[in-house]
Amino acid sequence: MTTDDDGIIVDLAAIEAAAERLQGIARQTPLLESAALNELAGTRLLVKAEPLQLTGSFKFRGAYNCISQLDDDQRKRGVIAFSSGNHAQGVAAAARLLGTSAVIVMPDDAPAVKLAGTRAWGAEIIGYDRSDHDARETIAAEVSEARGLTMIRPFDDPRIIAGQGTLGRELMAQAEAVGVAPDFVLTPAGGGGLMSGVATAVKALAPDCTLVTAEPEGFDDTARSLAAGERQAVREGAESMCDALLAPQPGLLTFGYLRRLVSFGTVVSDGEAADAMRAVFQHLKLVVEPGGATAIAAVLSGKLDHGGKPVVAVASGGNVDPGLFARILNGEI
Amino acid sequence: MTTDDDGIIVDLAAIEAAAERLQGIARQTPLLESAALNELAGTRLLVKAEPLQLTGSFKFRGAYNCISQLDDDQRKRGVIAFSSGNHAQGVAAAARLLGTSAVIVMPDDAPAVKLAGTRAWGAEIIGYDRSDHDARETIAAEVSEARGLTMIRPFDDPRIIAGQGTLGRELMAQAEAVGVAPDFVLTPAGGGGLMSGVATAVKALAPDCTLVTAEPEGFDDTARSLAAGERQAVREGAESMCDALLAPQPGLLTFGYLRRLVSFGTVVSDGEAADAMRAVFQHLKLVVEPGGATAIAAVLSGKLDHGGKPVVAVASGGNVDPGLFARILNGEI
Repeated sequence: MTTDDDGIIVDLAAIEAAAERLQGIARQTPLLESAALNELAGTRLLVKAEPLQLTGSFKFRGAYNCISQLDDDQRKRGVIAFSSGNHAQGVAAAARLLGTSAVIVMPDDAPAVKLAGTRAWGAEIIGYDRSDHDARETIAAEVSEARGLTMIRPFDDPRIIAGQGTLGRELMAQAEAVGVAPDFVLTPAGGGGLMSGVATAVKALAPDCTLVTAEPEGFDDTARSLAAGERQAVREGAESMCDALLAPQPGLLTFGYLRRLVSFGTVVSDGEAADAMRAVFQHLKLVVEPGGATAIAAVLSGKLDHGGKPVVAVASGGNVDPGLFARILNGEI
Repeated sequence: MTTDDDGIIVDLAAIEAAAERLQGIARQTPLLESAALNELAGTRLLVKAEPLQLTGSFKFRGAYNCISQLDDDQRKRGVIAFSSGNHAQGVAAAARLLGTSAVIVMPDDAPAVKLAGTRAWGAEIIGYDRSDHDARETIAAEVSEARGLTMIRPFDDPRIIAGQGTLGRELMAQAEAVGVAPDFVLTPAGGGGLMSGVATAVKALAPDCTLVTAEPEGFDDTARSLAAGERQAVREGAESMCDALLAPQPGLLTFGYLRRLVSFGTVVSDGEAADAMRAVFQHLKLVVEPGGATAIAAVLSGKLDHGGKPVVAVASGGNVDPGLFARILNGEI
């Protein structure tokens, strides 16, 4: 690892070290392609199928990389995290596999599939009211303090960023194996942990590749932050079905990566995310959750001006409740 | 290849030759596993995720292996096939990729996603009324004769069986890579082409492994044929949502393989297939069609007495209409 003026300490070597730790534990998820989807996209569109990852999202990569580096005393006491659901499951699974315990602070209205998944990995869940913005960090800090638990942050931690970066390294190798050097790599963005890691890997391997984030309308803090050159917050009172991407603003640490490495952000409506979910259901047979579909949606909706050049879009998670998925399949959203 | 008294000519060498032809063309679909699904199964259950195959089902393997062996004159004239939809898409895609043309005879009530998929690969579709049992073979034979097209049979052809066998060879290598020597391998069964190929590969590599077919209620011709030691037909007037598995009886050629290599057949209800589709949606984020879910359903419903030993179940396809999938997610089936 190296450090620079931004305090950034994740580089390709750190990501390779994370990949070593994840070897044989995390899945190498496939890079999927379909002729019909390419036609809809107007270019060659490769989809990194991360819903097939353990716990149904990329979050397992960072969580495992982080928890595996705790010392014996920390592991004995256990870990704590706050999350709307994907980081929750990633931390719960990593904790279980590494022989420690996890407490997760989750909003009461998190998707049932995410609550059930977190519980199934043996984590203790503490609920909170999502409308009380500060509640989760306050609760998590108090419980962490009282019980001596190590906080596993959702994105602002170099070990998390390096873990998510393994996805970027992996997709570049998989694209190369099918003869594609992508001109664009897109990922969904909430707090920015996924893109920070992915962009670090991709730019190290292909400096000319353009990195682009995708967010839901109303939660376009990353796109506006990139345009402004400084961190902006989400819009007051915004709502979206993309429950995984509702972080209030880019992280302090992650924005250092995004600002340096990412060209711009795209923004899609819930309807465009639903269109992408239906297209991926039909043409790739993959279940993608709303937030996880935003990068694909940015391509299919024409928000990305790709000029016919090959694109990799990351489908970052697939934890969606069956009732919502059914409504989307029926065209109700 | 070798022949024996049954006229069987597919062996592991033929399957390896097919794998060579498919190299870099067909996808190596992942073998998925989930802790929650294992818990439901009461044992270690590995799912071969063939919905992620090109055209959304295993049928592409056999079709490509077959059409790639046609001579120049045959390829110039084109091919014809009859199919309820998965073989249709497999043949259409293989024909397109190999530079020939395809005519497909399909029932008018085939799932829309299968009709659209077949059309998208550039095939010409001729419809027929499914209730007229002999219609499809008659039409296909007439058109084949009139236009000089080569018939690509859905299962009773050694080139098709060898192609499907690549799936069995692949899943055994993938299971070994994660340290599993399966005691049972299950596949759905319609005409028996998939299991003929898979059983040939699996028995060559692991002679003690038990092969088991899975069928929907009313279409249990394979289970009854195996029990009787001779081919039996489906029950009159039976109905099932498993549209891929409605072949009237095991093939003449395929039953030679099944009789020698498969221990017995299991039978599941449409409701049990729907349960399996929901479980795979939730825990593996994979879209599986009704017929494609029967092998998983046989495990999850307790129809297979696995004794806690590891099982591989093949999810053979994912071409299901969104409206039906939504009804299943909503628990209406």
